[in-house]
Amino acid sequence: MKVALDAMGGDFAPAVTVEGAVETINESEDIDIVLVGDEPSIKRELSGKRFPLNRLHIKHASQTVGMDEPALAAVRKKKDSSIRKAVELVRSQDADAVVSAGHSGVAMAISLLLLGASKGVERPAIATLMPTLKRPFILVDAGANVDCAPKNLLQFALMGNAYCRAMFSNPEPKVALLSIGEEDTKGNLLTKETFKLLKDSEMRFIGNIEGKDIFSGDADVVVCDGFIGNIVLKTSEGLAEVIMKMLKREIAEVAAGRIAYLLMKPALKNFKKKTDYAEYGGAPLLGINGTCIISHGRSSSKAIRNALKVASEFSRKKVYGAITEEIEAYQVRPGSV
Amino acid sequence: MKVALDAMGGDFAPAVTVEGAVETINESEDIDIVLVGDEPSIKRELSGKRFPLNRLHIKHASQTVGMDEPALAAVRKKKDSSIRKAVELVRSQDADAVVSAGHSGVAMAISLLLLGASKGVERPAIATLMPTLKRPFILVDAGANVDCAPKNLLQFALMGNAYCRAMFSNPEPKVALLSIGEEDTKGNLLTKETFKLLKDSEMRFIGNIEGKDIFSGDADVVVCDGFIGNIVLKTSEGLAEVIMKMLKREIAEVAAGRIAYLLMKPALKNFKKKTDYAEYGGAPLLGINGTCIISHGRSSSKAIRNALKVASEFSRKKVYGAITEEIEAYQVRPGSV
Repeated sequence: MKVALDAMGGDFAPAVTVEGAVETINESEDIDIVLVGDEPSIKRELSGKRFPLNRLHIKHASQTVGMDEPALAAVRKKKDSSIRKAVELVRSQDADAVVSAGHSGVAMAISLLLLGASKGVERPAIATLMPTLKRPFILVDAGANVDCAPKNLLQFALMGNAYCRAMFSNPEPKVALLSIGEEDTKGNLLTKETFKLLKDSEMRFIGNIEGKDIFSGDADVVVCDGFIGNIVLKTSEGLAEVIMKMLKREIAEVAAGRIAYLLMKPALKNFKKKTDYAEYGGAPLLGINGTCIISHGRSSSKAIRNALKVASEFSRKKVYGAITEEIEAYQVRPGSV
Repeated sequence: MKVALDAMGGDFAPAVTVEGAVETINESEDIDIVLVGDEPSIKRELSGKRFPLNRLHIKHASQTVGMDEPALAAVRKKKDSSIRKAVELVRSQDADAVVSAGHSGVAMAISLLLLGASKGVERPAIATLMPTLKRPFILVDAGANVDCAPKNLLQFALMGNAYCRAMFSNPEPKVALLSIGEEDTKGNLLTKETFKLLKDSEMRFIGNIEGKDIFSGDADVVVCDGFIGNIVLKTSEGLAEVIMKMLKREIAEVAAGRIAYLLMKPALKNFKKKTDYAEYGGAPLLGINGTCIISHGRSSSKAIRNALKVASEFSRKKVYGAITEEIEAYQVRPGSV
C-alpha cells in the first residue's frame, strides 16, 4: 500500500506532514509513503529522523498552493504544484491513495479533473465523520457542492451508504435526511423532493432528522447539500470550542475552581480525544475513481497520521469500488431517476 | 402594558404558563397579563397562588392546538383556540403583545393572518438570540421561511438591524451573512446574490461569516434563510446538550471525578445560565403589525417569565414601528430592489 502525501498542504506544512509520515512509517508496516513537494524543504524536515529509508520516498514538486489562493487559478496555472503531483501519482498507479491537508477546493478539483468521477456519479461529495453519544455518523455532503438537485442528494445518500458498509462493516446503515421536522411534509423544496427518492430507494431510510437529533447517534449517514453540510460542520466546530472556553472561564471564577479543573483534567483530555477531528484524520471524497482524503487545514502530525491510515484502509477495502457498484445498482432499478 | 399569554401553549402548559404569569405579575409592576385558554384548567392552576387580582385576567378559549397538529388544519378549523384568541386580543387592541410557547408554525400563521405583515415586508421572520463569548447575536430567520429569494434575506437583515437598534440600543449593529467562506465569491446562488444587496445597503455589513465564527460574538445580526437558521439553532442546541452529557460521563470515569464535579457545580450552573434558552425567553416575530413572541415548546416558568418581559419591552420600545421605518427607508432608496 503506497500513499502519496501532499507534503506542502496545510497550515503547519511541511513540518507536521513530514512528521506524520515518519511516525506512520515507523508504526505501520504495511504503508509506504511518497512525500510530494519541495525536496530541499522535505529533506530539511527529515534530517535527524529515523525511519526505514526504503519505505519513504520523495517526489519533487516546484510549486505550492496557498490556503487562500483562488481555486480556479491554482488548478489552471500551477501545473507543478505538490497537490497536483500527488494526485498524478494515483492516476499513473504509482500510488494507491492521496492525502492533502491543503486547499480543499483545489484538492477536490484536481482529483476530479485527473481521476474522473465514478461511473454514473454526477457530483462527488465530501464525507465527514462527526462524533455522537454513540458511534460517529457520516455527514455527506460536507462542503463539495453548494447548489444541489434532489438527484444529487440521492447520490450522496447512496455513496454514504456504500462507504459506511464497506469501510465500517455496517451491514445496513441507517440513512437520514437533514431537515427541519420529522414529518415528510417538513423541509424545503429540495428536501421534500429528496425525501421521496430516498423513500423509494432500497436503503434503510429512517426519514428526516432534525439538527438537535444528529448527535444522538441514531443515524449512521446524514444527508444534506454541501452548503448546509459545511455550515453544520463549522458551526459544531465553533460551538464546541466556545463551550469549552466558556466552561473554563466559569470554572476559573468559582471557589476551588482551580482544584476542580486539575482533578477533571484527565476527563477533559478523554473528552477532547473523543471529539477531536484529528482522531478521524480526514474526510474522503466519495464518487471519484480513486482514494482521495481531505484533511483539516490545521492538521497536527496526529491528524496526518490518522489521515494516512484512513487512506490506506479506504483503498484496501476498495470503498470506491463499492460506491460505483451502489450507484450502478440504483441506475438499473425500474423507475429510477 | 398588557400581554396576552397563550396559557395552553407548550409541553408543560397550563402549569408553567400560569406559574410564569403569576411570578411576572408579582415581580413587575408594569405588566398586566391575560391568560387565554380553558378557564377551569387555568383557575385550577391559580388556586392557592397569591397575586394582585386586578392585574391578572382570564379569557376563556374552548380549544387547544396540540404541538404536533398539522398547522394548516389547526389554523383553519380551530376558530376558538387559545393561541387564536390571544392574537385576537392584540388585534382588537385589548392587549399590547402576545406570547405563545405552543405550536410555533400555528402561532406565526395566525399572527400573520390576524395582524398582517408590516408595510413593505414580504415575509415576516423569527429572530432568535444565541449566546457567544461576548454578547448574544441575533439569528434571523430562525425558521419561519424555508425557501427564500435574495430580497427576503435582505429584508431579514433590515428587520434584524432595526430590532437590534431599537431593542438593545446598539446604534450600528454589525450585520453578517451566514455562508461557507469569507470572500464574497463563496456561497450558494442565494447568498451570492444577497451579498450584493447587503453590500449596497446602508447597513454596517461586515460580509460573510462562517459557522465556526458565529459564536465568537463579532457579528450582532447573522442572516440566513429559515431552513438553515432552524438547522443551525437546533444543531447548536443538540450539540451543547451532548457535549455536557459526554463531559459528565468522562468526569464520572476519572479518579476524583466526583469531587471535581461537586467543586465545579457552581461553574456548571453559571454556564447553564448563560447559555440556557430560558434566559432569553422567546423569539420575536419580526415584520408583523404587532408584538408576537414565540417561546420554546419546552419552556419552563422561568422561560415564560422572560418571554413576558421580552414581549413587554418589545412593545414598549416600539420595535415593530422601527422595523416598518427601516423597511420603508430602504424602499425609497434609488436603485433599491
